[in-house]
Amino acid sequence: MFKLIQQDKNSRARIGKLTTSHGEIDTPCFMPVGTQGTVKALSPAELNDAGAQIMLSNAYHLFLRPGIEVIKKAGGLHKFISWYKPILTDSGGYQIFSLALLRKVSDEGVEFQSHIDGLKHFLRPEDVVDIQKNFASDIMMPLDECVHYPCAKDYAEVAMKRTLAWVRRSKVESGLLFGIVQGATYEDLRKECAQRLVEIGFDGYAIGGVSVGEPKNLRYNIINFVAGYLPQEKPRYLMGLGMPQDIFEAVEMGMDMFDCVIPTRYGRNGTAFISSGKITIRNATYTEDFKPLDDKCDCYTCKNFSRAYLRHLFNTDEILGLRLVSWHNVYFYLELMQKIREAIRQDRFIDFKKEFFESYNNKIE
Amino acid sequence: MFKLIQQDKNSRARIGKLTTSHGEIDTPCFMPVGTQGTVKALSPAELNDAGAQIMLSNAYHLFLRPGIEVIKKAGGLHKFISWYKPILTDSGGYQIFSLALLRKVSDEGVEFQSHIDGLKHFLRPEDVVDIQKNFASDIMMPLDECVHYPCAKDYAEVAMKRTLAWVRRSKVESGLLFGIVQGATYEDLRKECAQRLVEIGFDGYAIGGVSVGEPKNLRYNIINFVAGYLPQEKPRYLMGLGMPQDIFEAVEMGMDMFDCVIPTRYGRNGTAFISSGKITIRNATYTEDFKPLDDKCDCYTCKNFSRAYLRHLFNTDEILGLRLVSWHNVYFYLELMQKIREAIRQDRFIDFKKEFFESYNNKIE
Repeated sequence: MFKLIQQDKNSRARIGKLTTSHGEIDTPCFMPVGTQGTVKALSPAELNDAGAQIMLSNAYHLFLRPGIEVIKKAGGLHKFISWYKPILTDSGGYQIFSLALLRKVSDEGVEFQSHIDGLKHFLRPEDVVDIQKNFASDIMMPLDECVHYPCAKDYAEVAMKRTLAWVRRSKVESGLLFGIVQGATYEDLRKECAQRLVEIGFDGYAIGGVSVGEPKNLRYNIINFVAGYLPQEKPRYLMGLGMPQDIFEAVEMGMDMFDCVIPTRYGRNGTAFISSGKITIRNATYTEDFKPLDDKCDCYTCKNFSRAYLRHLFNTDEILGLRLVSWHNVYFYLELMQKIREAIRQDRFIDFKKEFFESYNNKIE
Repeated sequence: MFKLIQQDKNSRARIGKLTTSHGEIDTPCFMPVGTQGTVKALSPAELNDAGAQIMLSNAYHLFLRPGIEVIKKAGGLHKFISWYKPILTDSGGYQIFSLALLRKVSDEGVEFQSHIDGLKHFLRPEDVVDIQKNFASDIMMPLDECVHYPCAKDYAEVAMKRTLAWVRRSKVESGLLFGIVQGATYEDLRKECAQRLVEIGFDGYAIGGVSVGEPKNLRYNIINFVAGYLPQEKPRYLMGLGMPQDIFEAVEMGMDMFDCVIPTRYGRNGTAFISSGKITIRNATYTEDFKPLDDKCDCYTCKNFSRAYLRHLFNTDEILGLRLVSWHNVYFYLELMQKIREAIRQDRFIDFKKEFFESYNNKIE
């Protein structure tokens, strides 16, 4: 299912290939986020065109709307959303612990009220895997209890141990399931969680509970620390990150998979990622700027439209504006991953990282 | 510039070809509306894919944002918006008389406050043509005074005569300019306006001041009446209409060109035009309906997505939903025009109209 292809000579960065029944994924990879069964503002055709090999969706959101039955009757999530490449579904643990109302957590599972209509639901870890099986997800994530930063050690331990027990109960006969390492910012808890998960044995390992409010250096410490306890021969997924810097740092620490709403969320707000950094397209400075967002980019947006036109679209609240910048951003992220893989292949990841940030932080536009 | 190709044997319907420097347009044609330089929610590539041969934009809106200078410096409107087929620009007369604030109309021109920022502007008919020349529009429309229904005859006459004088002053050395027939619901005023315009001589003739609140039978009477005074050898453009019924009726009366915001506006609200009528995709009846919007349709939406998925997208306020229904609707309109042209070519327009409405009003879905 996962083949480690090459290890960078000068860092822990690595390239690999993940095989699922809906196709292969080259790692390190970025998974565009389609929380509700659509990567916001983009079509599946555009996602394909941008080079996506996998997308992420969310079991909690799809469980609430349109519900399991609709997706099951549609013939699974791929058919429902018309995306025929791999899909990883997040369990929604993070969402239940951040979006949902009035939670009651017990070892048995979690009771919560929908953030949409207030209706009460109770989900056990077994139910959450079942939902994802009904979706025919290529990669499933177990229910976990995700704590925010800062979190007292005694509660972090309770949540980590509950996550471990839940993840154990989520083990399935068929399909790919990843374990999730929790333990907040406590190294001993993280280590215990990682080691126990590896003992049980999963198809891949995710680091959860990062980007929950902690300082950046603490975040990188934890990722680096946990990565050391994960087996080489399995894919490692860093959940919910991040900015280009996060991705570079984590790839360097040996992480393989990433997902983040940033390219589309920023795109909808008119912030574009380009080789020289981030630009805010609404700014008056772009009023008569007839250059593309990024003259090094081959995406549909950059090949056809100027910054001046994109600024006009945002100024007039036209949907095409947020479509075009979202599309460009996803393209930018996916192309970045491809360049990262190529650099690792040539044993020059560290040089590439340096080159990238020399340009990226040079915001003369 | 306009070639009348064939006249239907059983009605005044006709097919023709309009030639501009950006390409040919088969008539009767529908022009998707891109008021602010974008057909709402669609990309130029999608518009092309839907079969559009021409789009419409609006001088008043583009004059306010992004302004003449930006579009001029971009190299014209086509380059600015990346649409390289013909563009007809409406003068914005209708918008000045409906959207703008505190108008002062005189024979010289119109003073108004922008509906966006309240800034005062004064435009003479000469300025309005100049703006469109700067945009490099393929077909220009002169400034006109558009009155609403009902309108007292004495004022309708003043407005018609002013329009006539303005249109006369808009005559250009180069570029295509259409005359606009005004005169509210008064046959004698309409007749006078049409005859005077034809005496001056324009590249085409538009019927303005329809769909401004008048009853349907009055509207059709006026269109039918005016059409009788327009020369056969010039294109006739019915401004701002309409529903499929409006288009069929007006084609039957010999009209050649149409524009309307309906396919995209309805699309954004989740109403789809299909061969059996209009459907409202949010309705619960589509929750588990895995058929396409229209199984006779070959558009991207119908080829890839179910009603159940579209409903889910609208229910969750996802942008892809309004994109997909807008795209389908534009495709539906453009395909309808193609079928109308084919029917006229075969001298069976009246039969085709009957067949269309037998299916269209049969809303068993």
